[in-house]
Amino acid sequence: MSCVEAEKAEAGVFERIFYPRRIAVVGVSPNGMGFGSGMLAALRAIGFEGTIYAVNPRGGEFFGMKLYKSIGEIPTPIDFAVIAVRAAIVPEMLEACREKGAAGAEILSSGFSETGTAEGIALEREIRECAQRGMRIIGPNCFGIYCPGSGLTLLPGPELSRTSGPVGFLSQSGGMSIDFAHLGKWMGVKFSKVISFGNGADLREAELLRYMGDDAETDVITMYVEGVEDGEEFFDTLRDVTAEKPVIVYKGGLSDAGNRAVLSHTASMGGSARIWKSVLTQCNAVQVHDLNEMAQASLAFSCLPGKVYRGISVAGGGGALGVSACDSAEQFGFELPPLEKGISDRIMEILPKPGSSAGNPIDVANPMVPPEVLKQTLLYAAEDSRVDIQILVQLLYHYKSVALGLGVESVKDVTPYGALADAVHDVVTTTGKPVILVLPNNKRDRESLDIEDMMREARDIFLEKGIPVFDDLTDALRAVSHVSNYYETKQRRQQGI
Amino acid sequence: MSCVEAEKAEAGVFERIFYPRRIAVVGVSPNGMGFGSGMLAALRAIGFEGTIYAVNPRGGEFFGMKLYKSIGEIPTPIDFAVIAVRAAIVPEMLEACREKGAAGAEILSSGFSETGTAEGIALEREIRECAQRGMRIIGPNCFGIYCPGSGLTLLPGPELSRTSGPVGFLSQSGGMSIDFAHLGKWMGVKFSKVISFGNGADLREAELLRYMGDDAETDVITMYVEGVEDGEEFFDTLRDVTAEKPVIVYKGGLSDAGNRAVLSHTASMGGSARIWKSVLTQCNAVQVHDLNEMAQASLAFSCLPGKVYRGISVAGGGGALGVSACDSAEQFGFELPPLEKGISDRIMEILPKPGSSAGNPIDVANPMVPPEVLKQTLLYAAEDSRVDIQILVQLLYHYKSVALGLGVESVKDVTPYGALADAVHDVVTTTGKPVILVLPNNKRDRESLDIEDMMREARDIFLEKGIPVFDDLTDALRAVSHVSNYYETKQRRQQGI
Repeated sequence: MSCVEAEKAEAGVFERIFYPRRIAVVGVSPNGMGFGSGMLAALRAIGFEGTIYAVNPRGGEFFGMKLYKSIGEIPTPIDFAVIAVRAAIVPEMLEACREKGAAGAEILSSGFSETGTAEGIALEREIRECAQRGMRIIGPNCFGIYCPGSGLTLLPGPELSRTSGPVGFLSQSGGMSIDFAHLGKWMGVKFSKVISFGNGADLREAELLRYMGDDAETDVITMYVEGVEDGEEFFDTLRDVTAEKPVIVYKGGLSDAGNRAVLSHTASMGGSARIWKSVLTQCNAVQVHDLNEMAQASLAFSCLPGKVYRGISVAGGGGALGVSACDSAEQFGFELPPLEKGISDRIMEILPKPGSSAGNPIDVANPMVPPEVLKQTLLYAAEDSRVDIQILVQLLYHYKSVALGLGVESVKDVTPYGALADAVHDVVTTTGKPVILVLPNNKRDRESLDIEDMMREARDIFLEKGIPVFDDLTDALRAVSHVSNYYETKQRRQQGI
Repeated sequence: MSCVEAEKAEAGVFERIFYPRRIAVVGVSPNGMGFGSGMLAALRAIGFEGTIYAVNPRGGEFFGMKLYKSIGEIPTPIDFAVIAVRAAIVPEMLEACREKGAAGAEILSSGFSETGTAEGIALEREIRECAQRGMRIIGPNCFGIYCPGSGLTLLPGPELSRTSGPVGFLSQSGGMSIDFAHLGKWMGVKFSKVISFGNGADLREAELLRYMGDDAETDVITMYVEGVEDGEEFFDTLRDVTAEKPVIVYKGGLSDAGNRAVLSHTASMGGSARIWKSVLTQCNAVQVHDLNEMAQASLAFSCLPGKVYRGISVAGGGGALGVSACDSAEQFGFELPPLEKGISDRIMEILPKPGSSAGNPIDVANPMVPPEVLKQTLLYAAEDSRVDIQILVQLLYHYKSVALGLGVESVKDVTPYGALADAVHDVVTTTGKPVILVLPNNKRDRESLDIEDMMREARDIFLEKGIPVFDDLTDALRAVSHVSNYYETKQRRQQGI
């Protein structure tokens, strides 16, 4: 086989893994307990596009589906298998799947090298040997693959979104993969593929990163790494991939105790915080420090034009908001240039008085300023050439007081989030400068569930128009700074500086 | 008057301000617009305990209440007044209130020194002169006083809690005061008094801090400061007060742009970040950097025994949680001591396998481990003498999958948060070591409002038992570190080290 042919064959293997037409779920207990039954139920609930064969040595039925007594009994070849049997018989099941033509398999079972026992380590070696005979393995000790396009899902992921998007996620941790997939659903982060690879007996960080780098469906790569198998290979790959696409890396286990936890979690060796930081910086990878920061950065990379952002305008009701915006902005290396006098004067003409100011930050005086006034304010502020991106902070929960005052039952009926989304969308289209919405909710008591409901609807409406929404101003600024820093370094390197 | 008599008289003045029997709201528009009408409606909604007289020069009625044409027309002496008229006539109204016997007044109106105009500055001087004739003034350019015990409330605060508690808040920003009062309501931070003092023409940071230091209702003092009038006086007071009670300080405007924003917000001069940090450290004040951190620190100081915490145990379902706990803990100076072998073995006997580990962090393997198992786990871990405080991370939102799997309509019916609260409370009582609950919610899509509802109920149940709840592990660790650091320094200074 030529090199090109080998690449094509490999691409074909991955295509069969992420978009399988026929899969086997091995280890489905008829009583509905266990990972196998959970995964089968999840695949049916999310609407997996292909055919599913369920396997249990005792046969029988599960929710009206025939349970095959063995993999060999399945009437057709398969593309992919989900393995959820006890560790000791995993190698045997894998081999049977391979013989049934499977291009790959994910092993949800744990009890391998992460236990630190000789038996677990030996079993994991057997898995690797099976892979070497010609099948790609995800896991063991993982939650599998989530691919919104095909309907493959994680454990326990019956309700994940079926809408694909630009973000790929590689995770050594199963919990992190399901948590990120859930977070993404409401935050507006849409995934191409999420791969929880656990102990990574066969496929792991470097090769999967290379795959995502080449994958046309993935524009933003995110990773949760506990430890890498081959540092040199990983960092070489990382450097290559970041030259094309942003790679956001969350390295877990940078402390002593964290390192210990990593060992019992995915059998990986960690590494010092200093070394990781330095190497990630050299590779122009985006380093984040927790799941929320990773999700926020993914949202910013997904929604914002890829460029350097320096000057920011911040508008919102309430002077302390502006003060806090400035403090945070400086911390992340942004400038809040005082707006040109002419612009500032025009803004002051339209804002309520007293209580407003338009230096930058722009204090619009109160949280109930109408969308058309906010729109004009943003249009004016964008005229300042030093403003690259605008942030609008809206405390929508204050409309609850308006609803109470007017005797209106639903806070949705008095909060102009629809009009605000249209207004902001117009501003972005007209000015060509992105606007970020920050929608904090400080009223989260049990009587205010209607505010939460309204704000979730508002978030979705903004996201549908491509406008990123954050709960918190500092989070938003940090996310934008990741985008800006990545593109600054990338440009610098392309120019050979 | 002797010194003791003067102090008593002063205490009497503050008693009449915070617990007034009769108040005037001056500037109530019969059309319901403006700050005066808003405040009147809020006072009635929250159930202010005293008598309210509303004043408007045109007379008439507002929601069935007589509007007095002047302050002089009010039939009885008053204790306190809310002033919400245009800036130019504020001094005249103040003087009339003073003549009516008011011990104090809050001025909601803006248009004073924060405008930077000669007129505004002159008007503010008149306010100060009125105060010098014998009345204490809060404001102008503020949102007033919130005192859950008497039912005085902020603007716009009709729905704030009427339950008093140990936390006092002094704020130069009105928006920050109402936001913190809202946050506190659901987070479990209960207030003695919240004072938004705006431009601080009369009462401001140093004197109010001294008052809170002496106030028997206040155990934890919080402040949002943009700039101080007299640095030496303020820092002397701060040093004195922190020797008795924790003082949490959020200094806004530490950046260049923030300083500029401060000037147009409350007419204060800021100061450099380095100087503030150094002085706050010298004073053993707790420095925080945003509203959320302030609220979280307040909760920790309210709920935790005042002492030094070094060793932490962290338990939760999902290995990456443990890894991330370790990384955060080390950052805040905590240790996660590996549990003694005997203790670790006993924990492993009761945890589900495989997938669990009990080194510390304790990975309980999945998010659905029953409360009785978690209870025993915490009881065992507390036996390790190096563990000072325990953190339990529970991803309760995963019970939604359980509810869906069982066909149960409400996630509340399958989530054992009541039993968990009892279990944790028993652990705290038995071991004498506090337990903190971390309840993240990664499922915040529009179809999962029932999870939010369940988690708010769960939070309230934990809080009722005195168990602090945080959304996020890093936030929880940071809050505990503030408590620990404060008491460590306090002890050291008491011992003269």
